[in-house]
Amino acid sequence: MSLLKETVAAIAPLDNEAARAAVERLNSLTKPIGSLGYLEEIVRRYAAIRHDGSARMERGAIAVFVSDHGVADEGVSAFPQAVTAEMLRNIAAGGAAISGLARRFGYMLKVIDVGVKIDTSASPLGGVTYRRVGPGTANFARGLAMTPVEATQALEVGIEVAGDLVRNGATLIGIGEMGIANSTSAAAILSAITRIAPAAMVGRGAGLDDAGVRRKTEVVARALELHRNSLDGGESILAALGGFEIAAMAGVCLGGASLNVPIVVDGFIATAAAAVAERIRPGLFDHLFFSHRSAEGGHALVLEHLKVRPMLNLDLRLGEGTGAALAMNAIEAALDLFHNMATFASAGVTGKLK
Amino acid sequence: MSLLKETVAAIAPLDNEAARAAVERLNSLTKPIGSLGYLEEIVRRYAAIRHDGSARMERGAIAVFVSDHGVADEGVSAFPQAVTAEMLRNIAAGGAAISGLARRFGYMLKVIDVGVKIDTSASPLGGVTYRRVGPGTANFARGLAMTPVEATQALEVGIEVAGDLVRNGATLIGIGEMGIANSTSAAAILSAITRIAPAAMVGRGAGLDDAGVRRKTEVVARALELHRNSLDGGESILAALGGFEIAAMAGVCLGGASLNVPIVVDGFIATAAAAVAERIRPGLFDHLFFSHRSAEGGHALVLEHLKVRPMLNLDLRLGEGTGAALAMNAIEAALDLFHNMATFASAGVTGKLK
Repeated sequence: MSLLKETVAAIAPLDNEAARAAVERLNSLTKPIGSLGYLEEIVRRYAAIRHDGSARMERGAIAVFVSDHGVADEGVSAFPQAVTAEMLRNIAAGGAAISGLARRFGYMLKVIDVGVKIDTSASPLGGVTYRRVGPGTANFARGLAMTPVEATQALEVGIEVAGDLVRNGATLIGIGEMGIANSTSAAAILSAITRIAPAAMVGRGAGLDDAGVRRKTEVVARALELHRNSLDGGESILAALGGFEIAAMAGVCLGGASLNVPIVVDGFIATAAAAVAERIRPGLFDHLFFSHRSAEGGHALVLEHLKVRPMLNLDLRLGEGTGAALAMNAIEAALDLFHNMATFASAGVTGKLK
Repeated sequence: MSLLKETVAAIAPLDNEAARAAVERLNSLTKPIGSLGYLEEIVRRYAAIRHDGSARMERGAIAVFVSDHGVADEGVSAFPQAVTAEMLRNIAAGGAAISGLARRFGYMLKVIDVGVKIDTSASPLGGVTYRRVGPGTANFARGLAMTPVEATQALEVGIEVAGDLVRNGATLIGIGEMGIANSTSAAAILSAITRIAPAAMVGRGAGLDDAGVRRKTEVVARALELHRNSLDGGESILAALGGFEIAAMAGVCLGGASLNVPIVVDGFIATAAAAVAERIRPGLFDHLFFSHRSAEGGHALVLEHLKVRPMLNLDLRLGEGTGAALAMNAIEAALDLFHNMATFASAGVTGKLK
């Protein structure tokens, strides 16, 4: 059996008993019942995913997958494609937003080249893990973004990265990405899955003007028409529309779930990955936290369609895992309260009136 | 001139030049312009309030004001009044939610007894600052909650606490509170200021049942009728409806603004304080951050009416400054990115296409 199939088969249902134990403790803490709102739901679900009623937190980790997209040839990005390789270096060197947040919050930061066009693996950049599936995807407006074999390979890169992080102590993993033109790929995937029209889905990405947005919308609409007969299964959607980093993030979602580790989904692009993973393994969303509602394109509509609740709403649209990192920090704060607050009994505080 | 009048007179307009300098640096960082969304607006406004284009952050501090409310006699709370003193002890001893968050985020935590019914000042509790205005307010459903002199005194306690914290290095101050029945006082104040009807304003507080909510709504409506001729100025609203901790938090808002230190407003009760402070000094909201949209009562309606944007929306309804602490942590993360991200020039990253 392939790693992908094994992983999907290994995903267990949530542990209701662990959830019940967590709620019991939550209700004993010196606060009105339920008054920590969604933070209590986060603790409950973390315990259920981890199969651990005491909801122990070890380390947080962020996996940032970087790759290029052939569809950049259609003029769908405000930045030149060379920026992907430049940002790969910047993220690994500590200068990018996600580098700063990971440092600040004490998270392991794994930066994976899963298919950047400019190949730096011969003189490897410090801090970069090379798991290149190819030198960027092909232009999905004119044919498949990748072969089915490459789609499986990229998914399995993500599964392996999740496994590595868990072996290194991660009990909470955020997924992020960088790749010029990848919001075009994500918009196409999310339109395919949600049936929300490209005009409502496509956004400005890194800063397109109105003409650019019109062009990008046409490219997505054309691609959906071109690939209309191969948009059913998660793997065929990936092969049709890309990209390598989106496939790898979907792999982390599946791999994390198979290891009882919750995955924190970043913004628009990462949501496309999560939606693909859910297509591959229905019910997977139970194992994920959606970090934030991005300002990019139709993300708000998508979250509503997928019936998931974003933790934060700060109009972020940067990617890289920045929203995931901020949400993970809030999850950690919730777990800290769960572990360290006094109980009514221990603090000698009187409970609710009858 | 009184401390209150001096303080109000000392509040300067925001520094647009500092804001401009901050935006210039934000736009040089390795990210698409504006892609950090509201976090960029936070940095810009922090710089403008601080009159410091480099937006330096020293320390965060949380001031938690605790006091009792005579209106508890009307049966408007799910918990007995003795809980106020018990929670004063618990917060100062480190067992409450705000104690844990302040510890986790490294914030100074100042816990002030500004009028708890049970007077512990003779054998002072460790970690509590005693600035008692009285043994709780009077029942505002039957008369004034406090005298005008007491209202000024409580406001000035807040101004002095803000000054103390700033002298100890705080450049960002969160306000929080605890006091059985204080959501009744806050609902009355917010109805008086926004004209939103008590039925839409009153919430469950720490856990009222439906009958309790009906009783609480009637109490608020009756009090607004009783005091209808004394609800114009901020100080007279405080004297009519209380409470000491709400007045003190309003004082922190004014004091912080006079010292160019942004104040982070917690939830429903703290918003009542901020609204009173804005009534005393119109334009004060420019100096404040609203941390979160609480699940309590009409808080969402109030924020909309006041035209302010909450940073977080996690259905918290605990108070104590917990929402403020979580938002301060996000503000600090935004400032950290501002200070430590690479620029396009320093990282050798290509800018936007023409």
